[in-house]
Amino acid sequence: MIVSIIGLGLIGGSVALKLKKSGFADQVIGVDVNDENADKAKALGLVDDCLVLPQALSIADLVILAIPVDSIRKLLPSILDRIDENTTVIDLGSTKSGICGAVLGHPKRKNFVAAHPIAGTENSGPEAAFDSLFDGKTGIICDKEESQESSFQLAKNCLESLGMHVVEMDSKSHDLHIAYVSHLSHISSFVLGQTVLEIEKDEASIFNMAGSGFESTVRLAKSSPQMWAPIFKQNKKHISDSLGAYIENLQAFKQMVDGEQEDAMIHCMDNANDIRRVLDGINDKSNQTEKLNQII
Amino acid sequence: MIVSIIGLGLIGGSVALKLKKSGFADQVIGVDVNDENADKAKALGLVDDCLVLPQALSIADLVILAIPVDSIRKLLPSILDRIDENTTVIDLGSTKSGICGAVLGHPKRKNFVAAHPIAGTENSGPEAAFDSLFDGKTGIICDKEESQESSFQLAKNCLESLGMHVVEMDSKSHDLHIAYVSHLSHISSFVLGQTVLEIEKDEASIFNMAGSGFESTVRLAKSSPQMWAPIFKQNKKHISDSLGAYIENLQAFKQMVDGEQEDAMIHCMDNANDIRRVLDGINDKSNQTEKLNQII
Repeated sequence: MIVSIIGLGLIGGSVALKLKKSGFADQVIGVDVNDENADKAKALGLVDDCLVLPQALSIADLVILAIPVDSIRKLLPSILDRIDENTTVIDLGSTKSGICGAVLGHPKRKNFVAAHPIAGTENSGPEAAFDSLFDGKTGIICDKEESQESSFQLAKNCLESLGMHVVEMDSKSHDLHIAYVSHLSHISSFVLGQTVLEIEKDEASIFNMAGSGFESTVRLAKSSPQMWAPIFKQNKKHISDSLGAYIENLQAFKQMVDGEQEDAMIHCMDNANDIRRVLDGINDKSNQTEKLNQII
Repeated sequence: MIVSIIGLGLIGGSVALKLKKSGFADQVIGVDVNDENADKAKALGLVDDCLVLPQALSIADLVILAIPVDSIRKLLPSILDRIDENTTVIDLGSTKSGICGAVLGHPKRKNFVAAHPIAGTENSGPEAAFDSLFDGKTGIICDKEESQESSFQLAKNCLESLGMHVVEMDSKSHDLHIAYVSHLSHISSFVLGQTVLEIEKDEASIFNMAGSGFESTVRLAKSSPQMWAPIFKQNKKHISDSLGAYIENLQAFKQMVDGEQEDAMIHCMDNANDIRRVLDGINDKSNQTEKLNQII
């Protein structure tokens, strides 16, 4: 099978590496608007060859879009216009409703499968790619009923070849939940980094006094602004709601601090401690498989 | 040398293990108000023996307080009352001004050294202790001029035996900076955990959709409420200021999201990205030593 990957950053590059390694793809073709990225991806051995978009579309059995969500939304209709009947297109964007909305009623909507691998790091670009990025992670497929069976199966096989468990849900639920468990984390981290850098202007105190806790909380602040701004724009409503709830809870906590209300603080932190149980669930693979089976 | 450690949780237990392993202590005595903790610490081999406080104080060359900061503040004056002239007392609390204030003018103030190891994990209790917790971390000593030279040197040797680089600063600066680079991170994480748990009541969506990014951002929400509430109370002013600044920046970011101001969001995230350079400094040991030498 020939797979053409549009966008050769962390996600696209890692997909390329793993699909080749797993034997899913016989040939991996890369496309990147940035020539430097394309050259690096080829030099790093992520792809077999780089082509321009029309050529890459014409020879592909499967086209994978690993570009920012605004570019996916813009490009996807014209890609569907140009592919032949037997080609499947998957996107890997972090928002799903807007992208699905952009091709609603398109004659080749059935050739498209909306997907979101819950995987990533704070690093970006082809140099950041590695083949185990998706191992054991969750791959979400949205609005399955809009895709033809053969395209859905191909997309599912592809995500599984990448090492993921596949979960299905509708694109609207996806965007709601992902606002809380991913997009909000990124904003909390970006703004934490910003706040500390604004105050600690000499940096020596950050350098000396920051421990692994700070580093963990602020890790996502290293993420790519060009990738995240379009996500925040496309999932505006849910992100605004989740951010509003977060701000309200922080204001309540600030009042407890100001009022030295230790019992109230402990109650609040006790509740938050429950995240340990939930996260331990995430890390417990047997439990994960069991829970996933209940859902699928 | 006989070292008595008051408080046998993550910090006290890890200190015990490493001081024995490094040869700094010939004998490590443990004290814990919780008998179960004391028994566990002994069973786990963290300490040679557990004694009641008066006995532990009477035989110790060095007393280390590894208990919550409100307990340190309460207990420290009476501990100084009871030790003999040649005993040194170190505390390892995460706030310093209030603790130093509690023994200001005490006849044995010079026997006390105020310290803060910038090390920890989200886990607590004697089972969480491990001997490499402090390796390569920063150990801060505050208000050095209030301690006698022999006690300061003993404390410095002790922190270095634990594997730390020692940095000196005054307790007021400590509390200001640590509010931003540690205490604020903990609140942002506790409240993020709380917010997500409030909304995602069924937990299945957290379980399926949370990636490593969420896990990293919310890790500190697993921390001990009993340890953190007194810290937030003792460092109230600086924490309130830092939390206020964080909330304001989040409100500004929410306005950018609501107004779809992509350029403003990118500008803000670009600034936050600078944390990568600062954190890379933290992780680069040669750079760290160089920077520390400039400061000491």
